[in-house]
Amino acid sequence: MRNRYCVIMAGGVGSRFWPVSRNSMPKQFLDITGSGKTFLRETFDRFAKILPAENIFVVTGRIYADIVNRQLPELKDENILLEPYGRNTAPCIAYALYKLLAKDPEATMAVAPSDHWIKDEDLFLKDIQAAFDHAEHNPSLVTLGIKPTRPETNYGYIQVSSSSQNKYKGGAMPVKTFTEKPDLEMAEIFVKSGEFYWNSGIFVWKLSTIREELEKYMPELAAQFDGWRDALWTDGEDDFIEKAYGDCPKISIDYAVMEKTDKAWLIPAEFGWSDLGTWESLYRCASDVDDRGNVSRVEDCLVSDTEGSLVLSTEKDKLVVIKGLKDFIVVNTDDVLMVCPRDEAAVKQVVTDLSMSDFNRYK
Amino acid sequence: MRNRYCVIMAGGVGSRFWPVSRNSMPKQFLDITGSGKTFLRETFDRFAKILPAENIFVVTGRIYADIVNRQLPELKDENILLEPYGRNTAPCIAYALYKLLAKDPEATMAVAPSDHWIKDEDLFLKDIQAAFDHAEHNPSLVTLGIKPTRPETNYGYIQVSSSSQNKYKGGAMPVKTFTEKPDLEMAEIFVKSGEFYWNSGIFVWKLSTIREELEKYMPELAAQFDGWRDALWTDGEDDFIEKAYGDCPKISIDYAVMEKTDKAWLIPAEFGWSDLGTWESLYRCASDVDDRGNVSRVEDCLVSDTEGSLVLSTEKDKLVVIKGLKDFIVVNTDDVLMVCPRDEAAVKQVVTDLSMSDFNRYK
Repeated sequence: MRNRYCVIMAGGVGSRFWPVSRNSMPKQFLDITGSGKTFLRETFDRFAKILPAENIFVVTGRIYADIVNRQLPELKDENILLEPYGRNTAPCIAYALYKLLAKDPEATMAVAPSDHWIKDEDLFLKDIQAAFDHAEHNPSLVTLGIKPTRPETNYGYIQVSSSSQNKYKGGAMPVKTFTEKPDLEMAEIFVKSGEFYWNSGIFVWKLSTIREELEKYMPELAAQFDGWRDALWTDGEDDFIEKAYGDCPKISIDYAVMEKTDKAWLIPAEFGWSDLGTWESLYRCASDVDDRGNVSRVEDCLVSDTEGSLVLSTEKDKLVVIKGLKDFIVVNTDDVLMVCPRDEAAVKQVVTDLSMSDFNRYK
Repeated sequence: MRNRYCVIMAGGVGSRFWPVSRNSMPKQFLDITGSGKTFLRETFDRFAKILPAENIFVVTGRIYADIVNRQLPELKDENILLEPYGRNTAPCIAYALYKLLAKDPEATMAVAPSDHWIKDEDLFLKDIQAAFDHAEHNPSLVTLGIKPTRPETNYGYIQVSSSSQNKYKGGAMPVKTFTEKPDLEMAEIFVKSGEFYWNSGIFVWKLSTIREELEKYMPELAAQFDGWRDALWTDGEDDFIEKAYGDCPKISIDYAVMEKTDKAWLIPAEFGWSDLGTWESLYRCASDVDDRGNVSRVEDCLVSDTEGSLVLSTEKDKLVVIKGLKDFIVVNTDDVLMVCPRDEAAVKQVVTDLSMSDFNRYK
């Protein structure tokens, strides 16, 4: 296991859980699910069960360095990679890749977002181990594909051929295509076909394999980092990264490599997964739904004549009284109260309205 | 004018504007209407236009003494009458009556609740002056009766005979009956008849007249205060009042005297009045309704797809975002958030539920 590493990507700035998440405190640093741990902490603890802590790295924005330090105090500074700007996942992975190459060129690395919900941790770890095994024995870029349970239009999909499903029987299968988020009609076809899996954004590969593919499909990006790798692990690292990122395109690893490579493999996974990208998805994943379909994350709460609603308050010592709502979200924080229909379009509209209003400071 | 006094009754403990009003801070001490002044301050200022400040007295609960001092700093301590317990209006009026008798037996006094909304102050003062005039020249208990604009079931009504309406033409008319709150059917008959007025709870009378009627209809109460009146205006006043109130029944002046006396007169009033007993009534009296029927009393507020709703927040530096509500009340304070249909029964139910819940401390 010494050669196995994990890179947790924690650079997101999304305002999808606004008003609980903010630009200054994005989702990965919050305990949105009420588990008692932040997403980042959950993700770290999950990998720490199969990897030594010193093999776990976190990539995040410079402005979040303090938060990561606070939430993962056991993590050494050298294990926290600070991006000067967000440039999507390809530059983030390139940074981690060249940093690890300089330390342990024979290594295998898992890359995982820091803000996803995983229901069955044991199943997850089993799949991750299988992915490590596969990546170590094959020149492959392995991804965990989630067996879809509904025609979700907020996720990317990965296709394998149906013949390979028979051939590989639950093990890793060669990927046919990576696809972007489909419309509903297409999503229904995807799910019905049985050939499509949700793209979890979790990858496992040997450093040598991903490096090769990056050099092939993103030669400039690879050269940028490779040319300066002597600066990594030195005092000059931050300056170098600042320059490298300045020239980087904003591009995802999916688009930069996975859609193009012929080395993509998929391990089908059924551990229960959501990227928790919306309040609606949080509501759907909640295990504490009462018999009227309400989820209440408030200590002092009186709910009546209400159904299908999510009520959440992060303000201390506050009584929340709710009556007569149907399919609503009520979110109360220290400085924002939002009462809004639960459907995704409505919540999205609220955040859009906010951005264009005089109250942009609350974002 | 030297002989004219006003007694402002500010002892109410109502939780009708819960969660803004509390047991520790009832409605009369709040600026519920957003006028910039509390009800008590409004009431005081109104009477101060026609009476010298030293002729204005406030009766309130002992626990509210500090609040009254703070809100009416110009009021001398001797002008604040402190009740040890709430005993409804008859004992409150008896206390004020015997206190004034000891000071100025020839006086005329107005009695007014401290927590009513009055739209046209000039008309109100004109009617009060007329009531003073009438009470000074006749042995009458004068009340201001509000010309009803709808069959309200939350108010008591006062009946005059239709013949007296012709006879007295807008001046004071002898009262036929005082009635309790009617049901809707009865209220509709009342309004249609043209003989009924809303009971505003505002009275004007000479001390000698009300004393006589009190002695006649509440002899024990009168004797209780009369026997100990030497203690008034002395250091022994509080002790005496404590004892007197201990023996007092809880009884309104309407029930104790007005329904029985033959000296009741009514001055018809149309200055725009509400006892503001419910959030619904506040909504109805609001002058700042937007074109979708919303009233918003929040500094930072984003309201969309919402109609007929009242949104109010007393918490500082908080953005309130409301979407998709119809005929709702959203009230946010430092320690309570309430989202509830606007109708009176729903709000009442919330407060009842609260009383019986583990969260009674928020009352």
